[in-house]
Amino acid sequence: MKFAKRMERMQSSEIRELLKLTAQPDIISFAGGLPAPELFPVKEIAKVSHDLVEKEGQQLLQYATTEGRPTLRAKIAARMKDKYHTEVDPDEILITTGSQQCLDFAGKLFLDPGDVVLCESPSYLGALNAFNAYEPTFVEVPTDNVGLIPEELDKILSTTDRCKFIYVIPDFQNPTGRTWSLERRKKFMEVINKHNLPVLEDNPYGELRYEGEILPSLKSMDTKGLVMFLGTFSKIFCPGLRLGWVAASKDVVSEYVKIKQSADLHTSNFDQGIADAYMENYDLDKHVEEIKALYKKRRDLILKTMAEEFPAGTEWTHPEGGLFLWLTFPQGCSADKVFHKCIEMKVAGVTGDAFYPNGKTDRNMRINFSNMPEEKIIEGVKRMAKAIRECM
Amino acid sequence: MKFAKRMERMQSSEIRELLKLTAQPDIISFAGGLPAPELFPVKEIAKVSHDLVEKEGQQLLQYATTEGRPTLRAKIAARMKDKYHTEVDPDEILITTGSQQCLDFAGKLFLDPGDVVLCESPSYLGALNAFNAYEPTFVEVPTDNVGLIPEELDKILSTTDRCKFIYVIPDFQNPTGRTWSLERRKKFMEVINKHNLPVLEDNPYGELRYEGEILPSLKSMDTKGLVMFLGTFSKIFCPGLRLGWVAASKDVVSEYVKIKQSADLHTSNFDQGIADAYMENYDLDKHVEEIKALYKKRRDLILKTMAEEFPAGTEWTHPEGGLFLWLTFPQGCSADKVFHKCIEMKVAGVTGDAFYPNGKTDRNMRINFSNMPEEKIIEGVKRMAKAIRECM
Repeated sequence: MKFAKRMERMQSSEIRELLKLTAQPDIISFAGGLPAPELFPVKEIAKVSHDLVEKEGQQLLQYATTEGRPTLRAKIAARMKDKYHTEVDPDEILITTGSQQCLDFAGKLFLDPGDVVLCESPSYLGALNAFNAYEPTFVEVPTDNVGLIPEELDKILSTTDRCKFIYVIPDFQNPTGRTWSLERRKKFMEVINKHNLPVLEDNPYGELRYEGEILPSLKSMDTKGLVMFLGTFSKIFCPGLRLGWVAASKDVVSEYVKIKQSADLHTSNFDQGIADAYMENYDLDKHVEEIKALYKKRRDLILKTMAEEFPAGTEWTHPEGGLFLWLTFPQGCSADKVFHKCIEMKVAGVTGDAFYPNGKTDRNMRINFSNMPEEKIIEGVKRMAKAIRECM
Repeated sequence: MKFAKRMERMQSSEIRELLKLTAQPDIISFAGGLPAPELFPVKEIAKVSHDLVEKEGQQLLQYATTEGRPTLRAKIAARMKDKYHTEVDPDEILITTGSQQCLDFAGKLFLDPGDVVLCESPSYLGALNAFNAYEPTFVEVPTDNVGLIPEELDKILSTTDRCKFIYVIPDFQNPTGRTWSLERRKKFMEVINKHNLPVLEDNPYGELRYEGEILPSLKSMDTKGLVMFLGTFSKIFCPGLRLGWVAASKDVVSEYVKIKQSADLHTSNFDQGIADAYMENYDLDKHVEEIKALYKKRRDLILKTMAEEFPAGTEWTHPEGGLFLWLTFPQGCSADKVFHKCIEMKVAGVTGDAFYPNGKTDRNMRINFSNMPEEKIIEGVKRMAKAIRECM
């Protein structure tokens, strides 16, 4: 069989094999991006799903509109206003099969082979893979501790052809855990407006802030309809129901709807109904508070244990929210070497090079702190500290 | 914003607008492809979903493997063997967000712009739209009352470059309702094997046979690993849960898995669990028998009423199963004209030209007979008969 050219670029088996190593059952894994399952509102969802099917089964189990369940779209619009001061109309929202699907659709909507996608350096691996299927060139925009550097973006846009959109995660970025400052957001929007560049603002973790105030979304600062905001229920509710959304201007959403229709007709009507009915009958805000309390505890614990255990010369970010932090190993200590030593010691993170679309051998590792229980966090960090020392 | 070239080819707003007309609430619609909602096992699904969440909520609501729920893949493999005498290993199955997603993925896997997709003439609109996003050229293969004509396919393959795959629906085809004879299947496979052409065998309706025996699937005759079989729970269970699958050789499935991972990570774990637990606790075969009994009754009724009401010169297919039949209006009576007259009279089908990828003005209309209750079938056919007479 002769496959399309794009298949040569799809995620390398190398990374897939590495990730498989991290999924062995006896490993303490900081590698995934999994929420803590012990917080899933299991009893409530059991009741909600039963009652919902009894109440509206014939409609719930039938084909549905591509755009998504109207009452859920209305609730999402209200929540975006409440949490992010971001005003969107329910008609400006398309519900998708997880927010990963929005990434795929953005590639499909914008990219001809050879077009340019801009992204933070480093950026989310899953997004890079999704765009990759549409054969773009990636241009990485330099970042520092307070986010993407707008002056660098301006330079790139002034000298680069075929830039179709920029993909960014301003809040608790994956993989670094960093958050853009308010000043950076404002300057970023100036540059974007100057060049009329569409923006894909991915915000899967925004509500999970453990200190400080939620900063305004880029979408809330958007005066020209350039920003497409991606949201998800995976981190504030549960990911096994595949529920995400894109909020954008009506013209743009209608293009996404065309793509959605040919891609999978519509998002599971059942899953949409469950999220909708849960929010109707229970207090999602209270549930998010419980998640935040646990993840804050785990974040504080991992930061404290790292400070106690890691050898001098190791550095890490201090995320104000989200699920990840970013390690930098001491000079001469490659992430690849540490990774394999870690696997021997039954602990895992993801090596940093996976997050650079144009490749980079580096000394970084992404660490997830939301999924492992406290005693495993302590033990995992201790093992990792030993692995680092052995690689120095 | 500058979109990708493919967006110029996505489903025309014209067809979308026509379909909207058919969805007005006071219309008797033979236009959709909807199952009868009164048969959905609502009570059973209410119970199953409640019990399943209580039993395995933490796992069910978490991220899951891209390939799909292992026990559901095993049940699908067993069912394919039982119903279609088609032997596949559970590892050769990828569970997708409806079988529509398999169509999109096939386009993504095989097609560079300008590659050739072969299909029956006419063929399923939703598949044509899915492939269209990957900018192929469509070559239509002539068909008759017993299916695709293999000799014509052989001629085309001998003279056409860049043929990447053929898309076919051998059982109760959408839109015509026709089924390929056994002899045609054998000859088709000879031609395919001669040219080593990959085959996308779409079988959404195969179990819904109202007379005669189920014929062997193309997949069951495949000796070279060329056939990819697409199945779905939408017609034998319910479509609001988005559950389909592709069964193909392991090498090919692993490519689909890569695509799936970047497209939406995995199919709703909740939906997969419900189908699995339903099949575990209830008798899906018995449920399918109930569906078949009702649809057979509706098929018989619509055929009888058409024979009584339609003016001489109108012809239609006699489907042995599935959801659709195919009307041909009398000479000089265009489908477009009849369609608009029908809408005036509050009845609808889909005009045939939508099913020809390279366009055709014709005298055909696709009629769905599974969704409307009996009294509406009679009234709808009467109205349509009047519309035809007025257009003659």
